Amino acid sequence: MSQYAAPLKDMRFVLNELAGLGEVAKLPGFEDATPETVDAILEEASKFASEVLDPLNYSGDQEGSVWKEGKVTTPKGFKEAYKQYTDGGWAALPFDAAHGGQGLPKLVATAVEEMLTSANMSFSLCPLLTQGAIHALELAGTDALKHTYLEKMVAGRWTGTMNLTEPQAGSDLALVKTRAKPAGDHYLISGQKIFITYGEHDMSENIVHLVLARTPDAPEGVKGISLFVVPKFLPKADGTPGERNGAKCASIEHKLGIHASPTAVMVFEDAKGYLVGEVNKGLSYMFVMMNAARFSVGLEGVSIAERAFQRALAYAKERLQGKDLVQGGKTVPIIRHPDVRRMLMLMKSQTEAARALAYVVASSMDVFTKTKNKDEAKQHQAFVDLMIPVVKGWSTETGIEVASLGVQVHGGMGFIEETGAAQHLRDARITTIYEGTTGIQAADLVGRKIAREGGATVKGWLSVLKGFDAELAKSKNPDIQVLRQRLAAGAQAVSESVDFILATAGKDPNAAFAGAVPFLRLMGIVAGGWQLGRAALVSEKKLADKTGDQNFYSAKISTARFFADHLLSQASGLSATVVQGAASVMAVPDDQFLAA
Amino acid sequence: MSQYAAPLKDMRFVLNELAGLGEVAKLPGFEDATPETVDAILEEASKFASEVLDPLNYSGDQEGSVWKEGKVTTPKGFKEAYKQYTDGGWAALPFDAAHGGQGLPKLVATAVEEMLTSANMSFSLCPLLTQGAIHALELAGTDALKHTYLEKMVAGRWTGTMNLTEPQAGSDLALVKTRAKPAGDHYLISGQKIFITYGEHDMSENIVHLVLARTPDAPEGVKGISLFVVPKFLPKADGTPGERNGAKCASIEHKLGIHASPTAVMVFEDAKGYLVGEVNKGLSYMFVMMNAARFSVGLEGVSIAERAFQRALAYAKERLQGKDLVQGGKTVPIIRHPDVRRMLMLMKSQTEAARALAYVVASSMDVFTKTKNKDEAKQHQAFVDLMIPVVKGWSTETGIEVASLGVQVHGGMGFIEETGAAQHLRDARITTIYEGTTGIQAADLVGRKIAREGGATVKGWLSVLKGFDAELAKSKNPDIQVLRQRLAAGAQAVSESVDFILATAGKDPNAAFAGAVPFLRLMGIVAGGWQLGRAALVSEKKLADKTGDQNFYSAKISTARFFADHLLSQASGLSATVVQGAASVMAVPDDQFLAA
Repeated sequence: MSQYAAPLKDMRFVLNELAGLGEVAKLPGFEDATPETVDAILEEASKFASEVLDPLNYSGDQEGSVWKEGKVTTPKGFKEAYKQYTDGGWAALPFDAAHGGQGLPKLVATAVEEMLTSANMSFSLCPLLTQGAIHALELAGTDALKHTYLEKMVAGRWTGTMNLTEPQAGSDLALVKTRAKPAGDHYLISGQKIFITYGEHDMSENIVHLVLARTPDAPEGVKGISLFVVPKFLPKADGTPGERNGAKCASIEHKLGIHASPTAVMVFEDAKGYLVGEVNKGLSYMFVMMNAARFSVGLEGVSIAERAFQRALAYAKERLQGKDLVQGGKTVPIIRHPDVRRMLMLMKSQTEAARALAYVVASSMDVFTKTKNKDEAKQHQAFVDLMIPVVKGWSTETGIEVASLGVQVHGGMGFIEETGAAQHLRDARITTIYEGTTGIQAADLVGRKIAREGGATVKGWLSVLKGFDAELAKSKNPDIQVLRQRLAAGAQAVSESVDFILATAGKDPNAAFAGAVPFLRLMGIVAGGWQLGRAALVSEKKLADKTGDQNFYSAKISTARFFADHLLSQASGLSATVVQGAASVMAVPDDQFLAA
Repeated sequence: MSQYAAPLKDMRFVLNELAGLGEVAKLPGFEDATPETVDAILEEASKFASEVLDPLNYSGDQEGSVWKEGKVTTPKGFKEAYKQYTDGGWAALPFDAAHGGQGLPKLVATAVEEMLTSANMSFSLCPLLTQGAIHALELAGTDALKHTYLEKMVAGRWTGTMNLTEPQAGSDLALVKTRAKPAGDHYLISGQKIFITYGEHDMSENIVHLVLARTPDAPEGVKGISLFVVPKFLPKADGTPGERNGAKCASIEHKLGIHASPTAVMVFEDAKGYLVGEVNKGLSYMFVMMNAARFSVGLEGVSIAERAFQRALAYAKERLQGKDLVQGGKTVPIIRHPDVRRMLMLMKSQTEAARALAYVVASSMDVFTKTKNKDEAKQHQAFVDLMIPVVKGWSTETGIEVASLGVQVHGGMGFIEETGAAQHLRDARITTIYEGTTGIQAADLVGRKIAREGGATVKGWLSVLKGFDAELAKSKNPDIQVLRQRLAAGAQAVSESVDFILATAGKDPNAAFAGAVPFLRLMGIVAGGWQLGRAALVSEKKLADKTGDQNFYSAKISTARFFADHLLSQASGLSATVVQGAASVMAVPDDQFLAA
C-alpha cells in the first residue's frame, strides 16, 4: 500500500503558472523540456516514488542501516531500489549531456527530487550527496578527474559524499585538521571526518569522497583548506574500481531519524587523494556548491511536509470522534472539527507556499545558468542568492512544524511508531541542522546577502512586491483583498527590519544578528504569502474564465486567505522582535545563566 | 554523572515571591509547611532527583520497558529506584494525613513533582497516574474501598492507572464500549483499553486500575459511563494481594518517546470490578480529577523544558566554534554567538514564565481547597479552572519548543541519540496529546471556561492585569517599561479575542473554536508575561534594597524584557488570527483537500 501520491496537480500548477516552465524551456539547452516530455517525466517519477521508494520508507526506518566490521548494509530493498533508480536514468536527470546527463532544467529536476524525497527521505540522501560531489568536480576538477569520475557518478553507478565536518569543526570549518601530504601526482590524506552521509554503503560499485583537508604549508583558518577526491576503490586504468583505498568507515551514528541513511565516521589513513582545483581554495568551491545543497535541503522541508500532510489528511478523513459543532447528530470524521481543520490548513498552506517559493527559485537558477542576457543573469543570480537561505531555513523549520502538526492530528496514535507520523517528525528534525543550521542560514542572509551589499537585492525584491500590490489591488475578491493588506504589512515589516540590519550591522553586529532567525522567518512568510497571492490571482482569472478545475482554484484562494490571517499576521510581531528585541538577547551575562 | 540539578534558586524565588508560600502555609492544615521543613524537602527532593532518578533517564530510554507473556519488565534500576521513592516517603507527600499522607501544600508538592519529572519523566508517570487514582477514590469511593486501597496507594506500595481510552474512543469518551455486568457486590468488567500508562509493570505489589465502563442498562453517550476499581490482584481479607484478577496486559506500545514508561493494551475478561460512586456518574468524577492530571502534564512541559535548557546551556558553554562577532580573536564557546544566546533566552524565559504560572495556579488550588472564606475559595477555584487548560496547553507546547531548541543548540550532535537532547524532544512530544490534546484544552478554555459563563472569570483576570499595569507604571526601569507596554498590548489582544469568542460562540461555534489554539497560546504568553513582570518588580525592589543575589535579580529583569520583545510581541498577530482568521479555517470543503 502506497502512503504517498505525488501532488501532481499542484506541482503542474506551480511549474506552469508560477515558476514559468514555458519560459524556462525556451532557454538555450533546454529545448528537450517540451510539455509532453515534462509531463511524462512527472508521471514516471510519481510512479517510481510511490511504487518503489515509498514502500521502503517505514521498513527502512525500522530496520536502519547496519555497520559490521567496516561494512554497511542498507535496509532490505534499498540496494534493489537504487538499481532501479539508476536503470531508470533518474540519476542523470539534471546533469549536463557532456557526461551522460539528460540536461533537463533544474525546475523539472526539482519536482522530481521533491517526489523522491517525499517518498523516502533516507534514500534520497544518497543521490543528493552524489549531486554535490558531481557539482564540485564539474566546477573545479581537472579533465582527467572529470574523465575518470563524472560519467559513472552521473549514471549513479558510483556515489559521492561530502567530507567537511570533524569533531571539533562543525559550523566552523576554519578548525578543520585533516592533513593532505603531497606524494607525487596525488596526496596522502589522514584524519577523521564525522557526519558523512552515505560515507559507506552497499548500493554502488564505488564511493567518491570529496574531502576538505590541509596541505603541510597551508595557512591557518579557512584560507588553508583544500578539496580532494578520495575514492573508496582506486580506479584502474580501464576505469573499473581497483585497489581499496585507506578511507574506512569506523562506525555509523545512532540517530533520531533518517535511520536508513548511514551517517558515517570516516577515518582516512594515508588515503590516496587527488586535488580538486587549486590548493587552499577548497572552501570557495564548497560555497559555490552549497547553494545547490542548501536548496535541496530546503526542498526536503517541502517534501516531508507534503508527506506528513497527506498522512494526517487521510487520518482526519477516516478517524471518527465527536459531533459536528453546528449540526450535532452522529459521530463525524475529525476533519469536521475546526481545530483539526486549522491544523490541516496550516499544513496545506505552508507546504504549498514553500513549494511555490522553491520552484520559483529553481526557475531563476535555470535562467541565470542558461540565459545569454548578462543583466538578466545577474538579476536572477542575486535573487537566488538572497532566497537560498530563506528556502533552506524557512522551508525546513516549516517542515518540522508541519510534521509535528501531523503527529498532533493523529492524537495518541501519532505517538505510536507504527502509525508512521512520528517518523516524519524524526526525519524532518535534521533538516534545520545539516548543510548549515537555521542560525547559519539567517546569518548568511543578514550578513552576506543583505548587509554586505547595502540591501540592494532585498530592496529590489521589495519593489517587486510593491508592483505586485498594484496587481492585487485590481482584484475584486474580498479574500484577495485581505491577503493584499497583510502582504503589504509584511513587506513593511521586512523593510523596517532591513533598515535596522543595515544601520546596525557595522557598528553593533550582535544587535544585527540577534534577530537574524526571526528575520529569516519573516522573509519566509512574506515570500510564501507573495507566492500564494500570485496563485490566488491566477486562480481568480481561471474562475472568471471558467477553465480548469474550478474547485481547485477556489481552494487556492481560500488557502491564500488562510495563510494571510494565520501566518502573514505574524509579520509585525516579528519585525518588532528584530528591531526592538536585539537589546535583551545579550543582556544576561554568560555566568548568570542558571545561577544556582 | 548527573545531568540535572534542580533550579532551587528559581524555585524558591517563585514559591516565596510569586506564589505566596508564606500565605499558603497559614491555611488550616498546612501548619507543618514551615520555611525550614519546605527547604529541607526541596533539598532532599533535589538530591533524590539528581542521584537516583536522573542516572536512569537515558539508560531507561535506550532499554525501554519490555513485555513478555503478559508481564512487563521496567528498565534496569527502575524497580530499585521506585523502592527508594516509596521508602523516602515521596509518594505520600501531597496526600491527606487520614490515609498516611504528609498533608503538604500542593504548591510544595508541585516543586517536588517538577524535580522528579525533570530527572526522569518516564519514571514520574507511575506516581502521577497513581495520584489520579487516589483522587478518584478520595472523591467518590465508599469507606470500604478507601479502607482497602488508599493507605497502600498513598504509601506507593500499590500503584494506580486510569483506563479511559479504547481504540474507537479517544478524545470522545461517549464512544466507550467496555461493559460492566452486575454480579452481587461487584461487577464483571469486559473490554479492551489502550494507552494505559503503567498498566502493567514490576515495581509494585499490586496495580489498581480505575476503569470507565457501561452497565447493561446504561444510556448511550457520556451519561452512561460508570467508574470501577479493578485491581490486578484481588485483595485478601487481611489486605494483602490475593487472587489474580482478569485484567491482563496484552502488549505494550512501541512509542516515539517515554520508552521506559510502559503504555499498555489492557484486556478485561470478566474482571472483578467495584463501583466507584454512583452508576452513570463516572465521567463527572473523571472531570474533577482531570484538573489535577492536566495540571501535572502541564508541569511536565516545565520539567522537560528545564532539563532541555540545562543540557543545551552546558553544551553552549563548552562547545567552541567561531569567533566573537565584536571582539574577533580566538574561537569562543557558542554561547557568545547572538543566535545561540537568543535560543537559550527563549528556553530560559519561557521555562521560567511557565514555572511561575504553574506554581501560582498550584497556590490557588491550595487556597480554594483549604480556606474557610467561601468567596475567596470561589474566586480561586474560578481562576484555577480558567488557567488549567492554559497551564496544560501552553506549557506543553512550550516544552516541545524548548526541547526542540535544545536539539538545535547542539547542532549535529543534537541529532545523535547518545547526546540525550533528542530524547527530551521525543519525551516532550506526548505532553500535548495525552490528558486531552492542545485542541481539547483550547476548546475547554473557549467553551466551558469562557463562553459558558459569559467571560466573567477571564474579564476578572483582565482587571487584575489592569491593576498590575498601574504597579508597573511606578517602575523607573526602562526594561520594565517595555514589558509594561507589551503586556498592555497583550491584555488588549486577549480582550478583543474574548469579545469575539463571546459574540460568536452561540451563533457560529466553528468560528469561535477555529482560533481556540492561537487564543490559548495568547493566554499563555500574556499570563507568562504577567508572571515575569511580577518577578521583575520584585527584582527591582531587591536591587534597590541591595538584598540577595543582585545578579540573579538583574537577570530576572533582562529575562522579562526578552520575553516582552520575543514572545509578548506576538500578541496582536495572535488576536488577529483569532478574530479574522476564523473565516478561512473551514472555507476549503472536505473534498477539496488534495484534489489530485
